Amino acid sequence: MTAYATLEQRFKRLSLVRQSAEVLQWDTETLMPLGGNEIRGEQLATLRVLAHQMLTDPALADLMVAAETEPGLDDWQRANLRGMAHEWRHANCLPADLVEARSRATTECEMRWRKARPANDFRGLLPYLKTVLELTREVARIKAQAFGRTPYDTLLDTYEPGGRADDIARLFDELAAFLPDFIAAVTEAQARRPAILPLEGPFPAAKQEALARRLMAAVGFDFNHGRLDTSAHPFCGGVPGDIRITTRWNEADFTHGLMGVLHETGHAMYENGLPTQWRNQPVGTALSMSLHESQSLLVEMQASRSREFIEFLAPLAAETFGGSGPAWSADNLHRLYSKVERGFIRVDADETTYPAHVILRFRLERALLADDLRLEDLPGAWNDGMKALVGIVPPDDRRGCLQDPHWMGGGFGYFPTYTLGAMTAAQLFDAARRAVPAIPAALGRGDFAPLMAWLRENVHGKGSLLTGPELLTAATGRPLDPEVYKRHLQQRYLG
Amino acid sequence: MTAYATLEQRFKRLSLVRQSAEVLQWDTETLMPLGGNEIRGEQLATLRVLAHQMLTDPALADLMVAAETEPGLDDWQRANLRGMAHEWRHANCLPADLVEARSRATTECEMRWRKARPANDFRGLLPYLKTVLELTREVARIKAQAFGRTPYDTLLDTYEPGGRADDIARLFDELAAFLPDFIAAVTEAQARRPAILPLEGPFPAAKQEALARRLMAAVGFDFNHGRLDTSAHPFCGGVPGDIRITTRWNEADFTHGLMGVLHETGHAMYENGLPTQWRNQPVGTALSMSLHESQSLLVEMQASRSREFIEFLAPLAAETFGGSGPAWSADNLHRLYSKVERGFIRVDADETTYPAHVILRFRLERALLADDLRLEDLPGAWNDGMKALVGIVPPDDRRGCLQDPHWMGGGFGYFPTYTLGAMTAAQLFDAARRAVPAIPAALGRGDFAPLMAWLRENVHGKGSLLTGPELLTAATGRPLDPEVYKRHLQQRYLG
Repeated sequence: MTAYATLEQRFKRLSLVRQSAEVLQWDTETLMPLGGNEIRGEQLATLRVLAHQMLTDPALADLMVAAETEPGLDDWQRANLRGMAHEWRHANCLPADLVEARSRATTECEMRWRKARPANDFRGLLPYLKTVLELTREVARIKAQAFGRTPYDTLLDTYEPGGRADDIARLFDELAAFLPDFIAAVTEAQARRPAILPLEGPFPAAKQEALARRLMAAVGFDFNHGRLDTSAHPFCGGVPGDIRITTRWNEADFTHGLMGVLHETGHAMYENGLPTQWRNQPVGTALSMSLHESQSLLVEMQASRSREFIEFLAPLAAETFGGSGPAWSADNLHRLYSKVERGFIRVDADETTYPAHVILRFRLERALLADDLRLEDLPGAWNDGMKALVGIVPPDDRRGCLQDPHWMGGGFGYFPTYTLGAMTAAQLFDAARRAVPAIPAALGRGDFAPLMAWLRENVHGKGSLLTGPELLTAATGRPLDPEVYKRHLQQRYLG
Repeated sequence: MTAYATLEQRFKRLSLVRQSAEVLQWDTETLMPLGGNEIRGEQLATLRVLAHQMLTDPALADLMVAAETEPGLDDWQRANLRGMAHEWRHANCLPADLVEARSRATTECEMRWRKARPANDFRGLLPYLKTVLELTREVARIKAQAFGRTPYDTLLDTYEPGGRADDIARLFDELAAFLPDFIAAVTEAQARRPAILPLEGPFPAAKQEALARRLMAAVGFDFNHGRLDTSAHPFCGGVPGDIRITTRWNEADFTHGLMGVLHETGHAMYENGLPTQWRNQPVGTALSMSLHESQSLLVEMQASRSREFIEFLAPLAAETFGGSGPAWSADNLHRLYSKVERGFIRVDADETTYPAHVILRFRLERALLADDLRLEDLPGAWNDGMKALVGIVPPDDRRGCLQDPHWMGGGFGYFPTYTLGAMTAAQLFDAARRAVPAIPAALGRGDFAPLMAWLRENVHGKGSLLTGPELLTAATGRPLDPEVYKRHLQQRYLG
């Protein structure tokens, strides 16, 4: 067997062990009885240790060197080798005791955070978060030396392979210069219009679910290769070929849950659309977190909140819940789904204020990593940033720097992918409509097929064959361009 | 670390990989979308290969030799070493190509059987079954040489560690001498009584489920450590601490489904009652398939079909389904639940005819393994045996030798555990009632606690500390005694 073929075999096994863990993780968050938590934790830890051992097997390094010079590898195989090397590098450059210490620190900090947040106790959390930050800095320092990149970029690299903070900062600075005035203009314009009519519930969960399943099917979700279930925190889990999205139903308001399902359906379409023949190899996996988020936001924000789709959705929703009158008109529903309101909480933010929340976090985490900001000063810096970017100041840390679990879990470098995803979604949707002008009218009939066919060919089916900028350029003719995103926002909210 | 401690660590990891596979298997049979079958098959195969590699790691043999002579091991640790050796022996004595050939042959034969059974095509299945039998004989021959036991006993050993076919044959011959006349006497006695009144449905699945959950809770099933779901074939899956039983609902008849749930609940109580501190070690697992079956039959056949429990159940069932009148009386329900009828199908058989079905299969599989019976002659031998043991002859192979999948899957040596389990259940229930005379009255109030406390102490909590005969002798004062079982049958059916 060639070195390359041996590597494929080993990474296939690695993938299947990780997939097993994915299914167990889904089970943990949806169905598992609470008392199963302890033994489940041990099962997951064992699978993760096995996966780590596979990636740190000393034989891999030689195999990868040998495969590099093997003749006859095609583009997919070369990209697969790059993906293997990417995983290998991240798994092998750290001393085991640092990995373990950081894992323990993040688990502890996340646990403390669950109590510190409702208690508004940043001071109490500080020592735990400090340990996490210090160990994360140490990880980033070692990786920076090994990879020849900046410390922050090595963290970003696990979510956004090849991503560079300097590039992101340029994009984000442009957005930051645009957003505050834009948000002010939109809120003023919306305030001048008559009030949005409220939709009167209750909205029975069973009816919401029926409507959600109908819309999932409209997007193209294949229930022969996936499920919809409920969980405390909606997510897209499972594995390609058996994708499991989750939601929760709020009987007082169906509008958020419905868009949540469409969001997760976007993730699911990406996962199930990845190239089947590369399913268990690195090149067959999602390219980056920003591209993943772009697929959920493309379905939710670009397609499902478009005027065309709302025209399809409004009568369907009215029929489902027995609603009638002007509150159930497409116009009112569209206004409801594009309402802009400054708020303290990122996960509740609308499409226009969300990027401001993300830019704040990106700037703060870079500063924290670089030791340009002391953790003690985070609450103040957070509030200053909120004032500048969103225009309001949280009354407490609970609604400020304590609201997100990312940093407590060591997830520095993740935040920017949300807004990179939103920008990518706008640019892909724009290109798709140029390439296939029938897309908006089809969405007006609840028909996602033309859009999905374009995405399948230009995004999903490419797996990790290209780099992020290569894929976007091939699909849209240029790298990520904030102008497209700004134009989208202007057209939707001030158009 | 001592050799013994190293072994514990390795078997813990092995156990956790197997547990992961158990949960995936449960998911496969309950929730997985059909299209997930292929990738799930690869996940399961990978976990099984990993488990097999752990058990065949050459380092294990030396560790086990070293641990044998380590001082200071207590009884549990010694029993744990024996359990490890048992697993190790079975995994290491066969050449890999034989294991693989047999695995392929059984998969093929099971697949063919799914079509051959409805088509009543024994001839068509014959070549596939022949391959399975030949490869199973080869496995048994190699193990017989390695273990110094008879070929059949080495197969039995995977289900019934240490079991001996000669012992079973003696017990079964005694039963076989008793059953035909007994069954004739019971059917005659029952025919003389007025007809059992039918319970008129439909019985909505939701109501059946509510009643089933209430009874599970009465038995002591802890829903914080387990679930009830539906599947095509009811089973008890999951892992200790997170036990998942399944059922299916027939809206025309609730009586079978209800007893099915109680049966699986008996299995579940055993699994969740195994010693927690040995959860991931061989000594912490179920002792044998017959003891496992005894726990399901103890709950279903001994306790739940007792007159006392039926007195509790009848008004509850009537209330659940809105039934009234003499058909819903405890007397009628008790008669319904102890009706004896000769039939062709083992899985539909009542308590008295079931052992006759099992004895037939045990005798035939021994003869097949020993080459005393040619596979070509199986249908005739089957029908002769049915005539002699059950008193009726199947009109075709579909209802004869083609009805069970066990042999097609290579499961020779499994059948006797059903009836050993039934006998063990009777003997344990008899001993429990002697030790705790309050048990029957408690069952009459729907209270399983006194029975379960006795089982927890004498059976569940022992794990695999003792051998089967040791455990039964410690719990009941003697080894397996067919007289107790015969007395139980006589008292219930002719008492």
